[in-house]
Amino acid sequence: MEQVIKIGLLGLGTVGRGVYRILAENRENIRQRVGIGLEIKKIMVRNLDKDRGLSLPEGILTTNIQDITNDPEIKIVVEVLGGIQPALDYVLEALNRGKSVVTANKDMVAEHGQRLFKAAQTNQCDLLFEASVAGGIPIIRTLKQSLAGNRIDEVFGIINGTTNYMLTKMTQEGCDFKDVLQEAQAKGYAEADPTADVGGFDAARKIAILASIAFNTRIPLQQVYTEGITHITPQDILYANELGYIIKLLGIAKNRPEGVEVRVHPTFIPKDHPLAAVGDAFNAVFVRGNAVGDTMFYGRGAGELPTASAVVADIMDAARDIIRNVPGIIGCTCFKQLPVLPVGETLSKYYIRLRVADKPGVLASIALVFGNKEVSLKSVIQKEATGKTAELVLVTHRVQEQNVQDALMDIKQLSSVMEVANVIRVEGEE
Amino acid sequence: MEQVIKIGLLGLGTVGRGVYRILAENRENIRQRVGIGLEIKKIMVRNLDKDRGLSLPEGILTTNIQDITNDPEIKIVVEVLGGIQPALDYVLEALNRGKSVVTANKDMVAEHGQRLFKAAQTNQCDLLFEASVAGGIPIIRTLKQSLAGNRIDEVFGIINGTTNYMLTKMTQEGCDFKDVLQEAQAKGYAEADPTADVGGFDAARKIAILASIAFNTRIPLQQVYTEGITHITPQDILYANELGYIIKLLGIAKNRPEGVEVRVHPTFIPKDHPLAAVGDAFNAVFVRGNAVGDTMFYGRGAGELPTASAVVADIMDAARDIIRNVPGIIGCTCFKQLPVLPVGETLSKYYIRLRVADKPGVLASIALVFGNKEVSLKSVIQKEATGKTAELVLVTHRVQEQNVQDALMDIKQLSSVMEVANVIRVEGEE
Repeated sequence: MEQVIKIGLLGLGTVGRGVYRILAENRENIRQRVGIGLEIKKIMVRNLDKDRGLSLPEGILTTNIQDITNDPEIKIVVEVLGGIQPALDYVLEALNRGKSVVTANKDMVAEHGQRLFKAAQTNQCDLLFEASVAGGIPIIRTLKQSLAGNRIDEVFGIINGTTNYMLTKMTQEGCDFKDVLQEAQAKGYAEADPTADVGGFDAARKIAILASIAFNTRIPLQQVYTEGITHITPQDILYANELGYIIKLLGIAKNRPEGVEVRVHPTFIPKDHPLAAVGDAFNAVFVRGNAVGDTMFYGRGAGELPTASAVVADIMDAARDIIRNVPGIIGCTCFKQLPVLPVGETLSKYYIRLRVADKPGVLASIALVFGNKEVSLKSVIQKEATGKTAELVLVTHRVQEQNVQDALMDIKQLSSVMEVANVIRVEGEE
Repeated sequence: MEQVIKIGLLGLGTVGRGVYRILAENRENIRQRVGIGLEIKKIMVRNLDKDRGLSLPEGILTTNIQDITNDPEIKIVVEVLGGIQPALDYVLEALNRGKSVVTANKDMVAEHGQRLFKAAQTNQCDLLFEASVAGGIPIIRTLKQSLAGNRIDEVFGIINGTTNYMLTKMTQEGCDFKDVLQEAQAKGYAEADPTADVGGFDAARKIAILASIAFNTRIPLQQVYTEGITHITPQDILYANELGYIIKLLGIAKNRPEGVEVRVHPTFIPKDHPLAAVGDAFNAVFVRGNAVGDTMFYGRGAGELPTASAVVADIMDAARDIIRNVPGIIGCTCFKQLPVLPVGETLSKYYIRLRVADKPGVLASIALVFGNKEVSLKSVIQKEATGKTAELVLVTHRVQEQNVQDALMDIKQLSSVMEVANVIRVEGEE
């Protein structure tokens, strides 16, 4: 048996640097916990000369992927490049050469999971991706192993730190979306092009991965209904607060007899829900299983060391499997093909904010339309009546989305309705 | 390869019934996730005729342990009897016969872990015990695998549901310990003899197990400082609230350069700490690692199905290892021998409530004693001054426990001090 397992690292950005540092700083603990030493033999980077603030051994860097994929001594390839290509080609090449792969790449796993798992299975390698969702929070292994005895009914959570930071600020300080985005960009929490975060696309990739594991059914990314937070106003946050809710961007996956719901959108959740207290850039994932009941997993969803913590745990698992000669012990678990329901068939409660004429009979006409479409109202509050216009804030009972959309189409036609100002789903209560 | 892995179940009480039900209800999911079917072949019970509300196959029950330990077809033994004996003998016998063991027995694991792990290692079997701590919350596997790349600095949490239910009631309703205990007993949350829960002994076993794993050092139960909640009064809860804290019974384990601290006691934690929101009978464990930062794991710490969820996950892992012929892939991890610090050497802040004479100069004389013992005070509030007596509520800065005890010895001698009414540690803030 080898005394050291050698690793090839693809990428030395934020996460790559974290992986390097943890393997160095916690070396002795890690060696004893795995039963064998772990050593990074080669690191592929684009630029050999960039200063990375690490003291690296002579000759460890390379710009040539083949120095890693062609090296039979390297048993584990760790991909922290991000993006689809060239990461995908490199990972497939590594798997095809019998190397186990650890990746933090949510884009690649969400969009090409099937191909990757097939390659891993064919070559009897581990393909581990704990770091691809919710950074340091061990949610993948929890779903695949710790809750494996359950039928998972729901997984939903705060899986994008940038938008949670922004919504926390908006809630605490009453500021609007544009200002808080600028601040988040200035602090480095949001990128120059913030679309992936504020548009919900980052969260969509992550909930697609979580739902695929929870429901044993591969969820194609394009079937994830995705809505960002750009339309959330201080007004909505205020009304949420008055009604006993807080607004969070959630990734939501539910397993219903008719099929699975997978969606990302801003959501009203009750203030006493465990997710409501998750502020700033923290992530948390709530899981409901038919045996375990309600559980929640909380931690940092991004950052150099938290994400690297997940990567290193996967490296250690891959190493254990290599020592025992059982890579692939837990492989792809998508053995079902449950249908993904179109968003019109999803069930939710809805907060609806309307700007209407401030005159008698308006509420009656609106209530009539909802009634016709079988949308039952839980509460109606009239706000900001000026004599000319008023705001109507409605919360529905649980109803199929299509009914709400149909009702809103009709409501928009009413002469007394100036605007459907916002529609936000309500979750997390019976 | 076998088509079904056969299981022997020891005990058919609450948890045993849950295990039986989950394996039946989620049978197909479990089979697909493991890659092989799981079947309970024999169940050992004390009384064959008791009605358990399950429809059991003819002949599955036995009162004879040898029907399980002597049966070569049975590969996994699941122990849910509780208590030390005869569980310990049965488990050792099972391990010595090469069977993997899954147990929910915190008493046995906390007190006889070393013997058990040695037997598991000698016989190359799995010994899995996720259900022994915090019911359905997957904290053992998380520490052993998912956070294995970290140096764990702290583990602390709410690991006794009964006392958390009682403290939640006392906080919400202002009632006193005795009344809430009666109510908890009436509802079946507390046992007729509540000592194990309210005395902190149940939590002590669990934190001993968690600390052993987190710090890779076997923690003898007798070295866990243990203090229950019987001395917590509505007054303390009120003052905690005023000062921005909430009182929880915590198991606490810290890894310091001088050694490890492992203790159970009622604790002030800040209201905005993630553990503060964990109410009723829920459990939650907070873990701080040097890479991952702060994480928290929340769920039901007891009950038929939540505990059984953890047992079944362990059974599935044991089955995977048997299929691949690698039982024991993650065995005992106590490869260090860090010293456990005596309670006098632990570091904490302290809330101290004194009943004193209501006259000038009292505070000065008390402050002088604390100063002499190098205990620095963060805040002092005088309460309930009646002209005769007053209550002094003090919160210290972080200090070694021995200094506080020494100061209190001297303070008790002061003629102006009637009573040291309570001393409660403060944790969870910098």
